[in-house]
Amino acid sequence: MPCKKTGAQSVLFENGPYILGYGCVAGRKEGQGPLGGQFGYVDTDDRFGQDSWEKAESEMQKRALDAALAKAGVQEGEVDFLFAGDLLNQCIGSGYAARGRQVPFFGLYGACSTMGEGLCLAAITLSGGAGQRAAVCASSHFCTAERQYRNPLEYGGQRTPTAQWTVTGAGAVVLSQTGNGPRVTGCTVGRVVDKGITDANNMGAAMAPAAAQTICTHLKDTGRTPADYDLIVTGDLGVLGSKLLQELAGREGYDLTGRHTDCGLLIYDLQGQDIHCGGSGCGCCASVLAAHLLPGMQAGKWNRILFCPTGALHSPTATMQGESIPGICHAVVLDMGGK
Amino acid sequence: MPCKKTGAQSVLFENGPYILGYGCVAGRKEGQGPLGGQFGYVDTDDRFGQDSWEKAESEMQKRALDAALAKAGVQEGEVDFLFAGDLLNQCIGSGYAARGRQVPFFGLYGACSTMGEGLCLAAITLSGGAGQRAAVCASSHFCTAERQYRNPLEYGGQRTPTAQWTVTGAGAVVLSQTGNGPRVTGCTVGRVVDKGITDANNMGAAMAPAAAQTICTHLKDTGRTPADYDLIVTGDLGVLGSKLLQELAGREGYDLTGRHTDCGLLIYDLQGQDIHCGGSGCGCCASVLAAHLLPGMQAGKWNRILFCPTGALHSPTATMQGESIPGICHAVVLDMGGK
Repeated sequence: MPCKKTGAQSVLFENGPYILGYGCVAGRKEGQGPLGGQFGYVDTDDRFGQDSWEKAESEMQKRALDAALAKAGVQEGEVDFLFAGDLLNQCIGSGYAARGRQVPFFGLYGACSTMGEGLCLAAITLSGGAGQRAAVCASSHFCTAERQYRNPLEYGGQRTPTAQWTVTGAGAVVLSQTGNGPRVTGCTVGRVVDKGITDANNMGAAMAPAAAQTICTHLKDTGRTPADYDLIVTGDLGVLGSKLLQELAGREGYDLTGRHTDCGLLIYDLQGQDIHCGGSGCGCCASVLAAHLLPGMQAGKWNRILFCPTGALHSPTATMQGESIPGICHAVVLDMGGK
Repeated sequence: MPCKKTGAQSVLFENGPYILGYGCVAGRKEGQGPLGGQFGYVDTDDRFGQDSWEKAESEMQKRALDAALAKAGVQEGEVDFLFAGDLLNQCIGSGYAARGRQVPFFGLYGACSTMGEGLCLAAITLSGGAGQRAAVCASSHFCTAERQYRNPLEYGGQRTPTAQWTVTGAGAVVLSQTGNGPRVTGCTVGRVVDKGITDANNMGAAMAPAAAQTICTHLKDTGRTPADYDLIVTGDLGVLGSKLLQELAGREGYDLTGRHTDCGLLIYDLQGQDIHCGGSGCGCCASVLAAHLLPGMQAGKWNRILFCPTGALHSPTATMQGESIPGICHAVVLDMGGK
């Protein structure tokens, strides 16, 4: 069998797909951060030429996917399936971006874990033989997220110390059964984990238990240790969530120290940019993957990465009804095949 | 290869998974309709024992999946992947229903096409060898949809003649690599199609072009004709959308007359129940599939069905920003393997 379910939640791929191309775009604040020079395109006013923030987010997905296709040298019509998602109600960032594309479309909702969910599904789909090429795309926009999840920008709401900053960014990858470069050689599909956190301004704490569950299960399922990875990188746990993850994994006997980092910590200068706990959003890990992680693998910086996007599956309605915040985390093994 | 991409958008499965079990629940109005006796459980006040409509919808997904698992004789922990979605902002119907389940979770957003999207992905995943068993679940609730997409119930808004009625219902299926019963032997994954319809009270018209694109492409990709199917059943096109679909398919040379029906037409007595154009929602085709279509196949009524859930990928925000309504339709071949 080309894919093999391994342990409780993992799948290993005998001939996992290659990441042929990747692309990303980002907003002004992200462009001013430590990875600023690595995004393919940085918009000066975060509008991406559109007249609403929602349309801007759709435009970001279009540009990120076009950049990934160009880098892969693949035409749109050669992509068998597009997997995409975002944080907006009814996922309009992705739906409108896919409109008119000549590509069969799977819409995903994994909150900020979407890039991980899409990579798992794309790798399973291609490894099983259902297609030759697939694309995955995810986005978030600070201004669409603020008005939908929190307050209108004009309100000027005060942010709590545990708050994270939704990344204005989109990332896309094109996967192929043939080629070269980083491959997806395995994945661990997350469960919905809820430890009772109810503070929507402390998403890192809400998602950390899911990240710990997925990462520890991945290591058990595969018989690996953290040292088998050059980097274990979560999506958007931020400062607090990252500490919690390391503590929770430590209790399970896995020491992540020195191996773990978080895209929400990499993308901003937390103090200098007044970011509080770190970046968040589907676009956080999607753009860091395309801007920083995949190029770093190709440059020989890392040989094997466990890429672990994290998501919170709540909504303002659920929070208002007193519900706690369930989290999810999908882990994807990215492998250059070196020693 | 166990799955084979065929033509532009289709995948054929050499040994497609069996639908081992299915289950559904419905609300009071649905219980009073023509399929009333066929739902596994009909709630008397549409609250399903919960104190909010959103929690009721989550409870519906839980009960539908539990019923499908029981019918399949499968324990929750034996399911390798759960694919689920709904219409609520951030898909909280599915996210909260999956919380605490010991099953890896893929959240989907395909609007009312979700059951089709989930069946495509589950069949691709199992056929490729990534697992032995998968479950798919989708739901909608009249009261959650009204307050989110239209007006609060208390407002008593007048419905237009082209309006459809969101089904209070959930349906789930359990698929397995081994077993017996109806099998998924192929699928055609939809593209996002937008013909410029802007009236959010005429969803049938917005989705019909996507249904026509998917169904005609399916027939071209597989070299089949409508006569190869005992039934071609769309999700929720209703009266107007069904007429439009038949007209659009006719122009492509495919006569669907006598083969085509729509879950939104089957679930209600349109005149007697004051439904206007028909039923809609993720739960419409999901509950009709589990209550009516799969039992009918097992009873020998139909041998081969093309099940084509339809979705509209818009949102109230997109509509307020003047956007038209993109549609999508995923087609799934359900086959008893008879002559």
